[in-house]
Amino acid sequence: MSIKIKSPGTVANLVCGFDILGLAINEPYDIMEFELTDQPGVIIENRDDFNLPTDPEKNVAGVVLLAALEKAGVNKGIKVSIEKHIKPGSGLGSSAASAAGAAVGANKVLGNIFSQDDLIQLAMIGEKLATGVKHADNITPCILGGVTLIRSIHPLDIVPLANPDLFVTVVHPQIEVRTSDARQILRKQVFLKDAIKQWGNIAGLVAGFMSNDKALIGRSLEDVIIEPVRSILIPAFDVVKTKCKEAGALGGGISGSGPSVFMLSETEDIARKVGVIMKEEYDKIGIENYVYVTTINKNGVEVVNSE
Amino acid sequence: MSIKIKSPGTVANLVCGFDILGLAINEPYDIMEFELTDQPGVIIENRDDFNLPTDPEKNVAGVVLLAALEKAGVNKGIKVSIEKHIKPGSGLGSSAASAAGAAVGANKVLGNIFSQDDLIQLAMIGEKLATGVKHADNITPCILGGVTLIRSIHPLDIVPLANPDLFVTVVHPQIEVRTSDARQILRKQVFLKDAIKQWGNIAGLVAGFMSNDKALIGRSLEDVIIEPVRSILIPAFDVVKTKCKEAGALGGGISGSGPSVFMLSETEDIARKVGVIMKEEYDKIGIENYVYVTTINKNGVEVVNSE
Repeated sequence: MSIKIKSPGTVANLVCGFDILGLAINEPYDIMEFELTDQPGVIIENRDDFNLPTDPEKNVAGVVLLAALEKAGVNKGIKVSIEKHIKPGSGLGSSAASAAGAAVGANKVLGNIFSQDDLIQLAMIGEKLATGVKHADNITPCILGGVTLIRSIHPLDIVPLANPDLFVTVVHPQIEVRTSDARQILRKQVFLKDAIKQWGNIAGLVAGFMSNDKALIGRSLEDVIIEPVRSILIPAFDVVKTKCKEAGALGGGISGSGPSVFMLSETEDIARKVGVIMKEEYDKIGIENYVYVTTINKNGVEVVNSE
Repeated sequence: MSIKIKSPGTVANLVCGFDILGLAINEPYDIMEFELTDQPGVIIENRDDFNLPTDPEKNVAGVVLLAALEKAGVNKGIKVSIEKHIKPGSGLGSSAASAAGAAVGANKVLGNIFSQDDLIQLAMIGEKLATGVKHADNITPCILGGVTLIRSIHPLDIVPLANPDLFVTVVHPQIEVRTSDARQILRKQVFLKDAIKQWGNIAGLVAGFMSNDKALIGRSLEDVIIEPVRSILIPAFDVVKTKCKEAGALGGGISGSGPSVFMLSETEDIARKVGVIMKEEYDKIGIENYVYVTTINKNGVEVVNSE
């Protein structure tokens, strides 16, 4: 019996919600197919052109599957085929999709033995391999769907916030922003007055999502701490953001640690206009780019068929 | 015709929500009685023993009434009698109760001519006289009731969050904490990692209030930035907080800039036990104290009778 799942892309570091807020999107997504094997161990087959390692110890999905098998305590193995569409390094949660997909897939073939917190803990092992840090702000929306709060990692405290009917436009300019650079550039200390402004916006954003107040969401999509520093690494960021908001987008910012940039819109029409603007601006400066016009994913990783 | 109102005490700087979150409480409260007079100007009569100035230019309610008359553009005056029960300097929004009460009272005798934002702007004039700063985190819950978010002051952006059925225990130890000292002691810069922890808690607290998730409220009532610094000014703070939480309180902290300390509880029984603990601890170290066991005020300033 094999289980096929879709594992969605995610937007972490949601503007003012650096390190704590993320959301899942319907495109792009990865496809993963899992099979329980009598032979212990993990076998990885790549069905894409990213040339990711097939040694399970060096593969994000691989380490998660190994940990899942160990936690389950069974003398079995798992074979996984991965068809990745979320580009590694895009800032759209590519490693989280592999890690979260592997945790959910393993759980399905092992007979639904893990809790939600188990799944997140298992998937964080994959994130640790990919980024060096056990962070959960891509994994959590990837597994649960919608907009999620990670209030704390130690101890793990996950709060699903809302499933807003919003359109998401994402542009992935084909430049490399190394996560380590994006992290190093941040200041260790911030002004208290900026922190206060930021937490006012976070409170407004959470309240906006929970009461479905789109205007409040728009007013609160402002980041006075991380974006002014990190946006330097992303060409055309300011002009793209300004033009997208002029076209009617509620707001947006850097997806994850970049280079992708996302915008939230109330209507598909605005979301499409925003996509055209993004494409034009990156075409203008000669940077190859991919644009996605999509919606917030409400279900997280899901089984597409079992056979 | 005179209008009599009740103006409630408030808890600002709600734990992790420094400068942005406040709530109104049912006790203590001030009583104010307003009358429109043909003689222009403002007359203040004190019906309490606080010896607050009766010169309207030097009185928190007075400056608000003068501004309200000017904004209304009428050739009339207002006489106000004030029976204050919220002690000035308690950290329970005494000046805000005068300011917000004056704004609402003026609006009533002038025929409900002001918007909600007008009322808050008028009341901030009183806060400015009292504290030197136009802050709104006591005024807003005082006028609206419940738990309120002040996302921004410039421009004014007020978000009523919730009216939770929670019990509030407050102890006012009779020591002086000068607001200027409480402000000066704060560091101008904070660690980004602490700021992130703080905004995770703020997001959790807002989500907890809006979804009425008491456990989440409890977990999120944690302040890693302001409280560790300011609590030094309040004797017995740590032991009071620890014992109150052991007795079952969800959590709490410094009210405003102190010296009052508040705790939120799910039941009246716990709230009363918490009150006993607070009293015992301050009695033990010989500090005179007042304890209030009350609930969250849901209506804000309200008319008690008109004649």
